[in-house]
Amino acid sequence: MNKYSKTAVGVAGAGGYAGRELLRWLARHPRATVAAAVGSDGTPEAMAAAQPDFVFLATPPEVSKAWVDGLRAAGSPARVVDLSGAYRFDPVAVYGWPERNAAAIAAAALVSNPGCYATAANLALGPLIESGAIAAEEIICDAKSGASGAGKGLRADLQFCELEGNCKAYHVYQHRHAPEIARHAGVDEATFAFTPHLLPTGRGILATLYVRPTGGEAAMAAAYERAYAHAAFVRLHGGDLPEMSATAHTNFCDLGWKLRPDGKQAVIVSCLDNLVKGAAGQAIQNFNLMAGFAETAGLA
Amino acid sequence: MNKYSKTAVGVAGAGGYAGRELLRWLARHPRATVAAAVGSDGTPEAMAAAQPDFVFLATPPEVSKAWVDGLRAAGSPARVVDLSGAYRFDPVAVYGWPERNAAAIAAAALVSNPGCYATAANLALGPLIESGAIAAEEIICDAKSGASGAGKGLRADLQFCELEGNCKAYHVYQHRHAPEIARHAGVDEATFAFTPHLLPTGRGILATLYVRPTGGEAAMAAAYERAYAHAAFVRLHGGDLPEMSATAHTNFCDLGWKLRPDGKQAVIVSCLDNLVKGAAGQAIQNFNLMAGFAETAGLA
Amino acid sequence: MNKYSKTAVGVAGAGGYAGRELLRWLARHPRATVAAAVGSDGTPEAMAAAQPDFVFLATPPEVSKAWVDGLRAAGSPARVVDLSGAYRFDPVAVYGWPERNAAAIAAAALVSNPGCYATAANLALGPLIESGAIAAEEIICDAKSGASGAGKGLRADLQFCELEGNCKAYHVYQHRHAPEIARHAGVDEATFAFTPHLLPTGRGILATLYVRPTGGEAAMAAAYERAYAHAAFVRLHGGDLPEMSATAHTNFCDLGWKLRPDGKQAVIVSCLDNLVKGAAGQAIQNFNLMAGFAETAGLA
Amino acid sequence: MNKYSKTAVGVAGAGGYAGRELLRWLARHPRATVAAAVGSDGTPEAMAAAQPDFVFLATPPEVSKAWVDGLRAAGSPARVVDLSGAYRFDPVAVYGWPERNAAAIAAAALVSNPGCYATAANLALGPLIESGAIAAEEIICDAKSGASGAGKGLRADLQFCELEGNCKAYHVYQHRHAPEIARHAGVDEATFAFTPHLLPTGRGILATLYVRPTGGEAAMAAAYERAYAHAAFVRLHGGDLPEMSATAHTNFCDLGWKLRPDGKQAVIVSCLDNLVKGAAGQAIQNFNLMAGFAETAGLA
Repeated sequence: MNKYSKTAVGVAGAGGYAGRELLRWLARHPRATVAAAVGSDGTPEAMAAAQPDFVFLATPPEVSKAWVDGLRAAGSPARVVDLSGAYRFDPVAVYGWPERNAAAIAAAALVSNPGCYATAANLALGPLIESGAIAAEEIICDAKSGASGAGKGLRADLQFCELEGNCKAYHVYQHRHAPEIARHAGVDEATFAFTPHLLPTGRGILATLYVRPTGGEAAMAAAYERAYAHAAFVRLHGGDLPEMSATAHTNFCDLGWKLRPDGKQAVIVSCLDNLVKGAAGQAIQNFNLMAGFAETAGLA
Repeated sequence: MNKYSKTAVGVAGAGGYAGRELLRWLARHPRATVAAAVGSDGTPEAMAAAQPDFVFLATPPEVSKAWVDGLRAAGSPARVVDLSGAYRFDPVAVYGWPERNAAAIAAAALVSNPGCYATAANLALGPLIESGAIAAEEIICDAKSGASGAGKGLRADLQFCELEGNCKAYHVYQHRHAPEIARHAGVDEATFAFTPHLLPTGRGILATLYVRPTGGEAAMAAAYERAYAHAAFVRLHGGDLPEMSATAHTNFCDLGWKLRPDGKQAVIVSCLDNLVKGAAGQAIQNFNLMAGFAETAGLA
Repeated sequence: MNKYSKTAVGVAGAGGYAGRELLRWLARHPRATVAAAVGSDGTPEAMAAAQPDFVFLATPPEVSKAWVDGLRAAGSPARVVDLSGAYRFDPVAVYGWPERNAAAIAAAALVSNPGCYATAANLALGPLIESGAIAAEEIICDAKSGASGAGKGLRADLQFCELEGNCKAYHVYQHRHAPEIARHAGVDEATFAFTPHLLPTGRGILATLYVRPTGGEAAMAAAYERAYAHAAFVRLHGGDLPEMSATAHTNFCDLGWKLRPDGKQAVIVSCLDNLVKGAAGQAIQNFNLMAGFAETAGLA
Repeated sequence: MNKYSKTAVGVAGAGGYAGRELLRWLARHPRATVAAAVGSDGTPEAMAAAQPDFVFLATPPEVSKAWVDGLRAAGSPARVVDLSGAYRFDPVAVYGWPERNAAAIAAAALVSNPGCYATAANLALGPLIESGAIAAEEIICDAKSGASGAGKGLRADLQFCELEGNCKAYHVYQHRHAPEIARHAGVDEATFAFTPHLLPTGRGILATLYVRPTGGEAAMAAAYERAYAHAAFVRLHGGDLPEMSATAHTNFCDLGWKLRPDGKQAVIVSCLDNLVKGAAGQAIQNFNLMAGFAETAGLA
């Protein structure tokens, strides 16, 4: 227990979209208080001086690494949730997938929060591949995302006049999130097609996945029901496919699925808010597990 | 030749989105003049009295059939371009795919204009399947469309507040355009996945297709180059994938493609404006062929 | 106290935009629990059976009147917050302007929640007219609102394709909110110009007001500071005019103002979220006052 | 006459929004051909070498001045239409208001195209002030514009995520267009309030003006009808106020007006497409007058 009646947390990268979203949710969190929130001019030393028990890093990968090292150097005992891609392949951190790694997250000193696209794909694919309900090969993830996923840096293609009325695919066969999904959800990377698209809206991800069932609809449904029986933030829609906006400003991931008449292919639709379940909300969910709070605290 | 110095055309269904778009383009057409444009209260008899040489039907399928019959009954010799789905499987009409059926269209009394989704998919798939550059089986078309494709009828899910910030898949494995694409582009229907999505914008289609090349990138490029060497309205982008908004308010279909590193899969992106190349513009292109005008007249 | 550990509330009109927003905020309210939420098929009798202490009516005016009568007839002692326009001129209800009428609201059996446009205008004009810092005559309120203010009923002009890229004025010199503003903020109705416009977005109001200061910038600032010294949900921006989106999904009304160089005219900008401070949030603020809770409970 | 069968024109600043729009319209112009179109790396010398008869400058003010001087220095006889603000107060140029200055424009070597906001305000106010149908004092112009009016330079507030769902006033009582409107439409500058707002859309201007009629509705209507009896691009709507999107992608300015019941105030709504009648379209209209073509050539 420290001088705050609630658990003290710090936020680095508070000026970006994910950082701003974190602060908005933390302000409503019944068990957390923000001891320090800093933008790009903040330092690990000053953060350590504020004595937070937990620090959220909503910073670019290289900056996150410098913060983790800096906090240790400054003698801070704070446990860290890093929202960047810095530690998503690094065994020094626990991959912050609460529906799968809850126990390890609870004990971790450093949690690496999954990427937004990866969260949508992992939750759709993980239970199916693990249970063998679908093949791990030849999986396609055709993903659509609002512009906030690209962050706050100025980009010509993200100016209002350029994105309004537009849609485009990018980084086809070479997106940095593909290896993350392959690694953590058990997808065969060599035959995985991950095709992200930019949508003319600010927030939200809808991923349409094409997979090969091995055992029919019942096996898929069973795998999902088993995996998410106690998951607070995954909603199963069955054949009534979910819509993106129903998850806006929530920490939910909505999943629906439908089989081709011959049963040899299935379409899965996975929706979430890239700034919430895809970033700040999931970071708080991980923090809740680490701090021993209810997993849903502050996320209702 | 009739009393007009230009060729006289009529438009039925002038109040809908496609009809309105037709009138806008026809107003700029150097060789056409609109003798009559009627909405839902127009009749074939009155249209026949206006003596048009050509009639565009931007009406629902059942209404289009009644118009075709009504014009004949009223003694009108007018040749017809029907934008509905009424005749897309009917040998009484020529399928209005100008890049493939130009000669038949030129001689036709009744042309059935392809659907907007079908146009995007046909132009992407037709040459590849015909040349054998890809397999006809296991093709996926993940298509995204603006709201005008749904027409002007009031729908709760198309109210601004519902569609803003939203994206959703619909009619998965059961869209009426799938058989049209299968039939005309030579796709194996049983293993074809056509997944349309609604985008939060008014106009435009971007289709992302997943196919299986049989002979590498060169064979795909060669098939496209051969098919579209003289096509006025298909632009080939190669690996520099096209964006949707670059085709807005034009009659172009833009195509790009990229192979998976192992060469066993390819992503094709096909973009067009659903109201132009996907409806009114292509209808005028067909009319130009029928009337013996330059294919590009009024469509520059 | 009833069987619920929290105060039980009911919501009628739960299917509309304001009703839905109410439920979202009430779900996070630390002192309230929703005993019953009904749509257009709900009845006062069934609601009374759920024994709520408070009922929110997010229903059309005539329906609200029927609900108030029906609840009484069914013997319900519930105190009511009505979000419709049914009682805004009726002395049977207290006008729910928390920054002005807190004491009367706290004691009221029936509170009439102000309209969204009226809230934006009242908060901008009320203190200035009351203090004499501006004239009550020749006031102009050029207001801009997102589409959700029009409610959920299907309207052709609110379909996505019609509103996208559009802006229009409506009900010029005859909007039903003008008398409400005149009455409650003390505006001279005969010379008041209220010009609402529809914006191509879902939520938010920005009102630009043109007024005649009587005593300079200092008098205006002083009137605002005095009126809002203890107001939890009004933020004063001075000459740094506020933007609409900064109030989205919050219960704040942001005010800024600037004088013409000669001091004889001032522009005031007033922003809020029409579904929160302009409807559901303010209703909860009124409920908090009625129930004796902190005014900010559930609204942080 | 030069080597082109049509009149040769040049475009500088072809990469900006106005320049791009110019090229789109010029491509359809029956009497013009683009001899040279250059972006920010173009030079007057190279342009002069292409021997255009007319040059459009869609460049910033200082660049426009350098181009005008550079073309003269390079010996080019080209007549110039400048879309920037460089010459809007300079007697060396004719102010390109076709509905008022047609004869002077026809003879001009240098035409200064009006600003987009100024065009909307001038067309609304000019005839009324000139005829005395309204007072020149205490005029308010509450204007709303899409983002393309700000040009193509990267700005944080114009990134999609910032402008989506937003609306804001800017440059209140100090916008650079206010003196332009005052000067050319005869407005009393000291008591003129010009309040521009940014709308969450790409193109379009809707200006809501508040004026003081001196002689009733009939005098206003008569002034408009007289002024625009032969104007090809001004449409009078009377009390049926126009909407912004009806002018999108056209060269029209739509005007509507309505009097306060006591007749002492009127609201005027003026709409246009800021990139067409507010920039490129009006520039071509001026070019048509200068070249002796039909005023509507290429603008239908």
